[in-house]
Amino acid sequence: MTLLVINGPNLNLLGQRDSDIYGTMTLAEIEQKIQERARELGTEVAFFQSNSEGALIDHLQQEAPGSQGVIINPGAYTHYSLALRDTLANLQVPIIEVHISNIYGREPFRRRSVTAPVVRGQISGLGWRGYLAALEYLVASREESP
Amino acid sequence: MTLLVINGPNLNLLGQRDSDIYGTMTLAEIEQKIQERARELGTEVAFFQSNSEGALIDHLQQEAPGSQGVIINPGAYTHYSLALRDTLANLQVPIIEVHISNIYGREPFRRRSVTAPVVRGQISGLGWRGYLAALEYLVASREESP
Amino acid sequence: MTLLVINGPNLNLLGQRDSDIYGTMTLAEIEQKIQERARELGTEVAFFQSNSEGALIDHLQQEAPGSQGVIINPGAYTHYSLALRDTLANLQVPIIEVHISNIYGREPFRRRSVTAPVVRGQISGLGWRGYLAALEYLVASREESP
Amino acid sequence: MTLLVINGPNLNLLGQRDSDIYGTMTLAEIEQKIQERARELGTEVAFFQSNSEGALIDHLQQEAPGSQGVIINPGAYTHYSLALRDTLANLQVPIIEVHISNIYGREPFRRRSVTAPVVRGQISGLGWRGYLAALEYLVASREESP
Amino acid sequence: MTLLVINGPNLNLLGQRDSDIYGTMTLAEIEQKIQERARELGTEVAFFQSNSEGALIDHLQQEAPGSQGVIINPGAYTHYSLALRDTLANLQVPIIEVHISNIYGREPFRRRSVTAPVVRGQISGLGWRGYLAALEYLVASREESP
Amino acid sequence: MTLLVINGPNLNLLGQRDSDIYGTMTLAEIEQKIQERARELGTEVAFFQSNSEGALIDHLQQEAPGSQGVIINPGAYTHYSLALRDTLANLQVPIIEVHISNIYGREPFRRRSVTAPVVRGQISGLGWRGYLAALEYLVASREESP
Amino acid sequence: MTLLVINGPNLNLLGQRDSDIYGTMTLAEIEQKIQERARELGTEVAFFQSNSEGALIDHLQQEAPGSQGVIINPGAYTHYSLALRDTLANLQVPIIEVHISNIYGREPFRRRSVTAPVVRGQISGLGWRGYLAALEYLVASREESP
Amino acid sequence: MTLLVINGPNLNLLGQRDSDIYGTMTLAEIEQKIQERARELGTEVAFFQSNSEGALIDHLQQEAPGSQGVIINPGAYTHYSLALRDTLANLQVPIIEVHISNIYGREPFRRRSVTAPVVRGQISGLGWRGYLAALEYLVASREESP
Amino acid sequence: MTLLVINGPNLNLLGQRDSDIYGTMTLAEIEQKIQERARELGTEVAFFQSNSEGALIDHLQQEAPGSQGVIINPGAYTHYSLALRDTLANLQVPIIEVHISNIYGREPFRRRSVTAPVVRGQISGLGWRGYLAALEYLVASREESP
Amino acid sequence: MTLLVINGPNLNLLGQRDSDIYGTMTLAEIEQKIQERARELGTEVAFFQSNSEGALIDHLQQEAPGSQGVIINPGAYTHYSLALRDTLANLQVPIIEVHISNIYGREPFRRRSVTAPVVRGQISGLGWRGYLAALEYLVASREESP
Amino acid sequence: MTLLVINGPNLNLLGQRDSDIYGTMTLAEIEQKIQERARELGTEVAFFQSNSEGALIDHLQQEAPGSQGVIINPGAYTHYSLALRDTLANLQVPIIEVHISNIYGREPFRRRSVTAPVVRGQISGLGWRGYLAALEYLVASREESP
Amino acid sequence: MTLLVINGPNLNLLGQRDSDIYGTMTLAEIEQKIQERARELGTEVAFFQSNSEGALIDHLQQEAPGSQGVIINPGAYTHYSLALRDTLANLQVPIIEVHISNIYGREPFRRRSVTAPVVRGQISGLGWRGYLAALEYLVASREESP
Repeated sequence: MTLLVINGPNLNLLGQRDSDIYGTMTLAEIEQKIQERARELGTEVAFFQSNSEGALIDHLQQEAPGSQGVIINPGAYTHYSLALRDTLANLQVPIIEVHISNIYGREPFRRRSVTAPVVRGQISGLGWRGYLAALEYLVASREESP
Repeated sequence: MTLLVINGPNLNLLGQRDSDIYGTMTLAEIEQKIQERARELGTEVAFFQSNSEGALIDHLQQEAPGSQGVIINPGAYTHYSLALRDTLANLQVPIIEVHISNIYGREPFRRRSVTAPVVRGQISGLGWRGYLAALEYLVASREESP
Repeated sequence: MTLLVINGPNLNLLGQRDSDIYGTMTLAEIEQKIQERARELGTEVAFFQSNSEGALIDHLQQEAPGSQGVIINPGAYTHYSLALRDTLANLQVPIIEVHISNIYGREPFRRRSVTAPVVRGQISGLGWRGYLAALEYLVASREESP
Repeated sequence: MTLLVINGPNLNLLGQRDSDIYGTMTLAEIEQKIQERARELGTEVAFFQSNSEGALIDHLQQEAPGSQGVIINPGAYTHYSLALRDTLANLQVPIIEVHISNIYGREPFRRRSVTAPVVRGQISGLGWRGYLAALEYLVASREESP
Repeated sequence: MTLLVINGPNLNLLGQRDSDIYGTMTLAEIEQKIQERARELGTEVAFFQSNSEGALIDHLQQEAPGSQGVIINPGAYTHYSLALRDTLANLQVPIIEVHISNIYGREPFRRRSVTAPVVRGQISGLGWRGYLAALEYLVASREESP
Repeated sequence: MTLLVINGPNLNLLGQRDSDIYGTMTLAEIEQKIQERARELGTEVAFFQSNSEGALIDHLQQEAPGSQGVIINPGAYTHYSLALRDTLANLQVPIIEVHISNIYGREPFRRRSVTAPVVRGQISGLGWRGYLAALEYLVASREESP
Repeated sequence: MTLLVINGPNLNLLGQRDSDIYGTMTLAEIEQKIQERARELGTEVAFFQSNSEGALIDHLQQEAPGSQGVIINPGAYTHYSLALRDTLANLQVPIIEVHISNIYGREPFRRRSVTAPVVRGQISGLGWRGYLAALEYLVASREESP
Repeated sequence: MTLLVINGPNLNLLGQRDSDIYGTMTLAEIEQKIQERARELGTEVAFFQSNSEGALIDHLQQEAPGSQGVIINPGAYTHYSLALRDTLANLQVPIIEVHISNIYGREPFRRRSVTAPVVRGQISGLGWRGYLAALEYLVASREESP
Repeated sequence: MTLLVINGPNLNLLGQRDSDIYGTMTLAEIEQKIQERARELGTEVAFFQSNSEGALIDHLQQEAPGSQGVIINPGAYTHYSLALRDTLANLQVPIIEVHISNIYGREPFRRRSVTAPVVRGQISGLGWRGYLAALEYLVASREESP
Repeated sequence: MTLLVINGPNLNLLGQRDSDIYGTMTLAEIEQKIQERARELGTEVAFFQSNSEGALIDHLQQEAPGSQGVIINPGAYTHYSLALRDTLANLQVPIIEVHISNIYGREPFRRRSVTAPVVRGQISGLGWRGYLAALEYLVASREESP
Repeated sequence: MTLLVINGPNLNLLGQRDSDIYGTMTLAEIEQKIQERARELGTEVAFFQSNSEGALIDHLQQEAPGSQGVIINPGAYTHYSLALRDTLANLQVPIIEVHISNIYGREPFRRRSVTAPVVRGQISGLGWRGYLAALEYLVASREESP
Repeated sequence: MTLLVINGPNLNLLGQRDSDIYGTMTLAEIEQKIQERARELGTEVAFFQSNSEGALIDHLQQEAPGSQGVIINPGAYTHYSLALRDTLANLQVPIIEVHISNIYGREPFRRRSVTAPVVRGQISGLGWRGYLAALEYLVASREESP
C-alpha cells in the first residue's frame, strides 16, 4: 500500500516563520514523522511539494491512480484552485485534506476551501499531527473495507 | 486525565437513518469504540448527548473546567449556536470539533461553522474514526507539552 | 391512525395579543377545533407545545415514528432551527408545516423557512383553519396510498 | 358564490412530464376534482389557464371583482411577475396562492414568491389537493364572516 | 427531420440598428441562410418569431414535441423568463440556445441566462453563423445516436 | 408632430383603488388632460395601454419610429422587462419615463428601473401632472433643436 | 408664494465642463430661466448654492419653513447625505428633487438617491428644463389644493 | 413596582474570564449592586439567569406581565433568537436591552441584535453600570407617565 | 471635571416635529436638564450643536482633549461620517454615543453606526434621559478609576 | 492559415472519467477529429495542452500572434485565471472559447467565465463537436472578411 | 509651476497619536519636507488642510484650475465623499492621491477609495515620503510632455 | 544593497499593445530606466519576470531573503494569487507593490488586490515612473532606519 503526501505552496518554508501559527518543525521533520508512523503501520509513503499549481496537478494525475490514497495540504491553493479541485474530483482513491493551522480561526478568505467538497475528509488545526491522523485514517479505513 | 465527548442534537439517532451519510453505527457503538481506545491510551472519557442547546451549555460549563480536553460534535448547532460558541471560547482546555460526514460536501448552510473559529481544530468526514483521531490528538499533544 | 400536532414557541399565547395577525382564538380552542374535525375523520390527534427547541426535538424523536403524520407550526424556530430541520428530515412520516399568519407578508426574516425544504408541504396564512387543511390532507392522502 | 381558479404558464401540461414532481393528473382531471368538491359545497367555480402574463392580468381584472375569491397557481410567474402582483394587490376578494409541488424544496429561484406578500394565504406541496384545501378555506371563511 | 428556429423579442428588428453589435443582416436574411444550409443537410426548418413571452411558450408547447430539435434565441427573455425556462425544461428534444452577440462581453445583466441550465448547449458571439453551427450540431448529433 | 403616450399593466385601473397612492383620476381623464394640453401646444398625441409586455413591444416597434417622441409609464414592467428595455433602447426618438407615484418612496423592488438607463429622462411622483411635464419637455426641447 | 431653488456641490461649475452630460448653460443662466418663468407664473423664487453639506442644511432649516415649496438638486449629496435627507424629511412643504442628467444612465453609485424616498417627486434627465417642470408642478398643484 | 432582571447564556460565568471585555465582577456582585440601587429607588427587582432559550421564554411569559418592566441581557441569543424576540415583542411592559461590553466594537456577528427592534431601548458598553442606567430609566420614566 | 455634550445635524430642531419619535422637548430644554443634573453631580458641561461635519470635527479636536469625557449624538452622521469616526477614535477621553430614539427599530440604514466601534458605549432609545444616563456613567466611572 | 487549439488543465484526461459529463472520447481522439475537419477545410491546426497556467500563457504569447485564430478550452482556469484573460485580451486574432459540457447546467462556480468577456464567442455543451463548430466558424468568417 | 498639496480631515493632528500607523512627524514638518524638495525641483507648492468637505471642494474649485497639479490626501473622505470625487473629476490638471498608511492593510472600509477612479494615480503606505514621490512624479511627467 | 524588481504575467509584453493604458515603453526599456536610477543611488537591482505563479513564488523564496527589498508588479496575480500573498507575507524585507496603470479606474475586478494587505505600500497609476518611486522610497527609508 502506497500513500501520497502532497504539500502545496510555501509549505517548503515550514518552521522558518510564523511559528506561532504553523509550529517550529520543518517540512523535512514532519515528513520524517510521517515516514516513521507509516513504517509502523506497514505502509509506504511518497512525498511531493511544489509551489506550482500545474506541477501539483501533473504529479497527482500521474501518481495518484497508482496509489491507495492521498493526503494533501494544498496551502493557499485550497482557497481558489478550481483546477486542483477538478484533478482531485477525478481521482478514485480516498483523499484527506490537511491544514496545519485552524483555517477557520484566521482571515475570512481562509475559511473557504474549494477542494474540501470533493475529498473524503478534512483535518484542520491539529498541527503536524494532522498528517498522522490522516495517515492512520487511510490505513484503518482500508483494512476494514476489503 | 479525563476527556469529555459531547454530542449535540439528533446524534442520538445515529445508525437509524441516512446511513450513506452517517454510517450504520449507533452512538452507543461509537462511544464504545472511543471507550476502548481511551483505555488503551490510559485516559478516561465521559460521554454526554443532548438535543438541548441550554443543556449542552450547562454541561460544558460544569464539566469542562475539570477535564483535560473536549471532543464535541455540535450537530446542527455548529451552524448557528453563538451561545455554544461563547461557552467554548470561554474554556481553557483544548477542544476538537468533530463531524462524522464531510460538512463541506453537503448543503451550503452546513459549510459554515460558528464554533470552529474558537476551537483548537476540526475533523470532518472521517466517520466515527474522527472521534478516535481527536482522542489520539488530545492525548498525544498533552504528553508533549507538560 | 394517530397524527401529532406540534406547536412551537409563543404559540401558547395565541389569542392574547396581536389578534389582527394571529386571530382571537386561544391555542386550546384551536386544538379543540382540530380534535372535533379529527373525530369526524376517524383519526386520533396528540397535541404538544413547547417554547424549548430541545423539548420539541425530543418529543418528535420519541413520538413521530409511531404516528402516521405530523402537523407542525414551529413558530420562530421556522426561521433558524437547523436542529429541528434535521429532526424533521430524519422522519419517515409525512409532515405539513402550518403558519397561522401569511409569513410572506410580514418582516423579511419571516419569509425564510429552514424547515420547509424537508417537509411535504406548507400552509401559510389560512389562520387556525390551516391546521384543519393539514389534517384533512394527511387523512385523505393516506387513504389513497395504502 | 363564484370562485375563480386560475392557472399560469405550463400548467396546461400537467400530467405529461415530471410526474414525480407534479403528479400524474392532467389539469382537466384536477379541474374536475375541484368542480365536484365545489358542487358539494354549493359553490360555483370558473376555470382559466394561460401561458401569457398579459392574458392572466386581463382575465383577473375583468372576472375577479365579480367573484367571491380567487385560487391562483401563477406557475413560474410566481417568481418574477410584479405586474401580476400589482393586479392581485388591487383586488378586494380573498386570494389563495397554490403550488402543486413544495416550491421550498426545489431550485433556489422557486423559493421566492413575489405574489405571496399580497395574497391571503399560500398552500405549497399538497399536490392537486392544495386546490381543494384552498376551495374549502374560501367557502368556510366566507360563511363565518357575513 | 424538422427543426424549430425560434427568435424572441426585438429580433425581428435585426439589421436595423446597433449593427456593430448584431450585424447588418435582417432576420429574413438570416432565416434564408439557415434554410439554405438546412436544405444541404436534408433537414426541414420551421421559423417563428414573437415579442410575446406567452406566444413563444404556446408555440413551443405545440410545435416542439413534433420536432427533432429546437434552436432558440430567446432575446432578452434569456435573462428572466422562468416561464420559458420551464417550457424548455419540459421538452424532450435537444435544444441549442443561440445569441448573436457575445452576451458575456456586454452589460452585466446579459451575463445571466435562466434558460441555459435546461438546454443542451449554448452558442454566443458567433453572429448569424451561430444559428448554422446549432443546425449542424443538431443534425450531426442525431445521425450518430439513432 | 405626434407623440405616443403609452401606459403599461394595471394603469387601465387608475382611479379605482389605492387613490392615496395614484390619485382619483381615471386613465381616460388623464388622457383627456394630456389631449387638451397637447392641443394648446399644437401637438398630436396617440394613446395606448396594454397589460401585455409583448403588445407594448409590438406597438412601440410599429408606432414609435413614425413619432417624434414617446411618453411611457411601463407600470410594473419598469422593474424587470428587459425586453421592453431593448425595444426602447432601439428607438431613435426621445423617450420620457413617467411614474405617477414616487417609486423611490415605496417598496424596495420599485426603486429599480431597468428601462430608465436607456431613456432620456424620468419623472416620478408628480401624479398625473408628470405626463404633462413630459409632454411640455418633449415639445419644448424639439422646438429648440431643429 | 415663494419657492426655494437649492443647488448642491459642484453645480456652481455648470457649463464649464462635461457639457455633453450637463449642457452648456451656467448656473446663473439657468437661474435666470427659472426667474423668468416664475415671474410669468406670479411666483417668487429664492436661489441658494453651496458645496457644504452643513450650509445646505442650515439654509433649508432657516428658509424652507417660510416658503411654499423647495426645488433641490443635491448634487453628489443625493447619494449619501443622510443628514440632508433628515432635514428634507422634517419639512412640511412639498419638495421636488431635480437632476440635470439622467442619473439612472450613469455610474452605478448615482442610481441610488437617499433623499428621493422623503420628497414628493423626482425629475431626472430633462436638463435645465427639469427645474422649470418642478416649478410649474409646484405652482399648479398648489393652486388646486387650497 | 417590580422589575425583572434577566440574563442569558454564559452570563452566569461573569468575572471568571475575559475580564478585559466583561470586567471582574461576578453576576452575583452585579445583582447585589442592582439590588442596592433598587432599594434606594423604592423598587423591587427579581433576578433570573438561564443558558436555555426555552427557559428564558418560559420565565418571561410567566413573570413579565405581572412586572412593571424588564431589563434583559440576552447574551448570544441577542444575535439570533427570533423566538425570544417574539416573546419580547409580545410584552406590554417597557424593556431595556443591556450589554456589558460594547457589542459594536467586537466581532461582526455581535453587531446585529434581533431583539433590539422590539424593545424600548438598548444600552451597550457601560459595563455593569448599564444595568443601573436601565433601572434608573425605568423607574424615572414610570414616575412621569402615571 | 468638564464634559462635552455634542449634538449633530438636525438635533437643533428637536421638539418641532416627529414628536412621536423624538419627544416634545427642545434641545434647549434637554440641555437644561443635563445642566441641572450635572450641577447635582458637581460636574461642568459644555454644549455644542452643529449641522456641519467639519465644524463638529473642529470642535472635538479643539475641546475634547481638555475635557474628561464626551457625550455625543452624531445624528445622521452616525451612519456614514468616517471622518467623525477618525476624530473620535483619536481622542483619549471616554466617549458615550447617545440616540434619543431606538435606532434599531427604524429604517435599516439607521441600524449601522460607523462611530459606535470606536466609542466606550452607546445608549439608544431612552429619549432625553439617555443623555442623563451617559452623564451619570461618565461621572461614576471616573470616580472609581482614580 | 493556421489555427491554435489549446486545452487547459485536466483536459488531458478526457475519456477516462465522468463520461456522462464529458463523453467517452480521449483528447487525442478529439484532436484527430479536429485535424480531419481542418484538412477538409484546407486549414492547419496546432495543438497544445497544459495543466499549468503559466505554460498556457507562454504558449499563447509565443504562438498566437503568428496564427489566424485561437480555439481555447481553458478548463477550470475559465473561472478565475485573470492572467490568462489578460493574455487573451492582448491578442489580435479571433478567439473562440469552447466548453465540452454545458457549464451553465453544473455547479454555480462554473457559470462564471472570466475569459468570455474578452473573446469573440463561446460554445458550451456541444461536446467534442464544439471544437469543430469553432473551427468552422473561424474558417468561414475569415473567408468573408478579407 | 505651482502644485497644490491638500490634506483632509484629522490630518492636522498627524504626529499626535497612532504614530505606529501614521508616524511621528506633524503635518507642519511634512509640509516643510515637501517645501524643501519642491525648492530643489524649482517648483512652488501651496498647502491647504481642512476638516470640512465643503471647504476642501471650495478650495479645489478656486485654486486647482490655476495650478499645474494636485497632491491630495482626502483622509476619511476618501471612502465616501462623492462630492469631492466630482470636484476632482472636474479638474483638468493631473492629481495624485496620497495615503500615509497602507489603507489596504487596515479596516475593510478603508480599502475602498471613491476618489481613486478619477485621479491619475495613488500612493499608499509610503509614509510622509508618499507626498515627495507624488511631487517628483508631477514635476517629472510635466517636463516630458510639454 | 540589492533590490529585487519582479514583474508578473503579461508584463513581458509591455509596449506592444494597449499603449493608452500601459504606455509605449517595453519592459526592457523600463528595466534600463530602473537600472540607471539605481546606479545613481548606489544600489544594485536584479530583475525577474515570469508568467508562472509557481516560478514567481520560487524566485521570491530563493532571492528575497538575501535582498534588502522587493519591488513587485504581480500583474493579474494581484487580484487572486493567495499563494503569492502568503509568500510575500512570509518575507521580512520591505515590499512595494507597483501598478503601471491606475487599477482603481479600470474594471471592478482590478480594484481588489489580495497582495496589498501584506506589503509595505502600493503605487498605482504613475506609469513606469512608479518603479522609480518605489526604488527611491526603499533606498531612502533604508538610509534613515539603520
